[in-house]
Amino acid sequence: MDATADIVLADWGTSTVRIWALDRDENLLDERRSDRGMGNLSRDDYGPELEHHLSAMGVPHDTPVLICGMAGAAQGWQEAPYLDVPTDFTALADGAIRIAGQTRDIRIIPGIAQRDSANPDVMRGEETILHGLTCNKMIGGGLRNGTVCLPGTHSKWAQIKDGRLAGFRTMMTGEMFTLLGSQSILRHTVTAEDWSDDDFIAAVREAHATPARALAALFGLRAGPLLFADVAPHGAARLSGLMIGGEIASCLKVDGGRIHLAATGGMAARYEEALTSLEIDFDIIDADLAVRTGLFDLATRLWPERIPQRPTEA
Amino acid sequence: MDATADIVLADWGTSTVRIWALDRDENLLDERRSDRGMGNLSRDDYGPELEHHLSAMGVPHDTPVLICGMAGAAQGWQEAPYLDVPTDFTALADGAIRIAGQTRDIRIIPGIAQRDSANPDVMRGEETILHGLTCNKMIGGGLRNGTVCLPGTHSKWAQIKDGRLAGFRTMMTGEMFTLLGSQSILRHTVTAEDWSDDDFIAAVREAHATPARALAALFGLRAGPLLFADVAPHGAARLSGLMIGGEIASCLKVDGGRIHLAATGGMAARYEEALTSLEIDFDIIDADLAVRTGLFDLATRLWPERIPQRPTEA
Repeated sequence: MDATADIVLADWGTSTVRIWALDRDENLLDERRSDRGMGNLSRDDYGPELEHHLSAMGVPHDTPVLICGMAGAAQGWQEAPYLDVPTDFTALADGAIRIAGQTRDIRIIPGIAQRDSANPDVMRGEETILHGLTCNKMIGGGLRNGTVCLPGTHSKWAQIKDGRLAGFRTMMTGEMFTLLGSQSILRHTVTAEDWSDDDFIAAVREAHATPARALAALFGLRAGPLLFADVAPHGAARLSGLMIGGEIASCLKVDGGRIHLAATGGMAARYEEALTSLEIDFDIIDADLAVRTGLFDLATRLWPERIPQRPTEA
Repeated sequence: MDATADIVLADWGTSTVRIWALDRDENLLDERRSDRGMGNLSRDDYGPELEHHLSAMGVPHDTPVLICGMAGAAQGWQEAPYLDVPTDFTALADGAIRIAGQTRDIRIIPGIAQRDSANPDVMRGEETILHGLTCNKMIGGGLRNGTVCLPGTHSKWAQIKDGRLAGFRTMMTGEMFTLLGSQSILRHTVTAEDWSDDDFIAAVREAHATPARALAALFGLRAGPLLFADVAPHGAARLSGLMIGGEIASCLKVDGGRIHLAATGGMAARYEEALTSLEIDFDIIDADLAVRTGLFDLATRLWPERIPQRPTEA
């Protein structure tokens, strides 16, 4: 790394950690990734793991670090208590906690809770992506109203109203796909090599039209190939389509405004295909860029002397 | 065993085998159970396993054996090719295959396939329970029309019309409950000790009213206990209720006639509670008795010289 890092940002999730070093003008200087997420770290592992990466990037000892994600969970590095919906996203800076016992200034952003007994829900990490979307540089003027879909192991669907987080819902789509495809009787017919866009789209439409079908059609993914040996089963495509189609049917609100799909890689492509096949208008936003944008904006609020906020670009 | 067995009947499933020795008047002389099902037997294990039980019960060498269930699957003892719906149940006797290479007369009843590309489905074992229900002794006159719910790892809902099997649907309810409760993030809040009838019924009603909720409410089983620490989570009750309520909503047809719940033990009690809470009229039938009744009736058709059919009881 040639220039000096003014700020380090990190998205520390359940299975991975991603770390970015930036200067005060938001230029990316260096980045690191590892699979040492909350799932395979004990509380005392976080500090050494972070310093290992900072040292490898040549980050000075006094550069602060801002972290979002599961590192702030009760079973993570240090708990950053949830904020409650509805909330302004700038409250994430006020709610950040400072890690005790470290000479470096390291802070973790809180997650957000929906304390509604009929629809209890929590997020950690996605709130920072959502905050990024409300910043000017991501969407012209910053997102003020609409629905954001954040696909993943646990997909989130968030309602943004007047630039604030109004409410959200989590779907276990990704985890269900993995469990059913690898652990259930469907594992015999769900294989990664066996993909068909046509069968994926047909399953999305079927589950979206009648969401109860998402569960009722599952066993057919096993029985179909037993009975129609001459038809390629395309089990992964159909299972994914049923799960994603059911998710969209459950989470898409008629009055939710425009849809913004915040995703990356294969997940983005699959949801893009699903929404397109349902003739639903949407934008695609790079979730990696959004989380970094959200983290940087919060850093300017937490350390204004080091990272002055720049005037808004018109 | 004091009397001599005229016939041996067996229900040989994926995880267990149950074996009954009866005389020609359908009196039960002896019975055996073991957990040596298809899942932990290779093809060559079935013969010795069966003879071990027959020997322990003192069954003569010339007593025939009639088997239903997964022993007749392609990956079982010897394949008994599927019959197709719609079908008469008496065709199960004609379709039974005789095990090759055995001096004893051992036959396996075929499963039934639904070769409908939109709703492909298969059953092995349940067809014999259903046949039992159409026999006179189970339901006055024998079941002629109605819907039969057979709960299990893979629940079956069958439509009986004019005493024939018209069609059926399989739901992976039991397997989903086990996978989600033990392998997913919900395992932290789904524990067997933590049951509540009220929460089970509330979840049944919620999922039945809006089946898409069955998937959308899942993550709340994790988030709820995180946010409302003073409320008992009752995760197993709520997960079971969501799965069963969603199943009933998907499978209950308005024109399906009266519901017959063919089940035993804890499974019978749980579905009974669910159907009652939805104010759905139904009968309960002992599935163990039904499968034995079905097997015995088919045996009278296959070996009439050994087991003469008795005149119908009025």
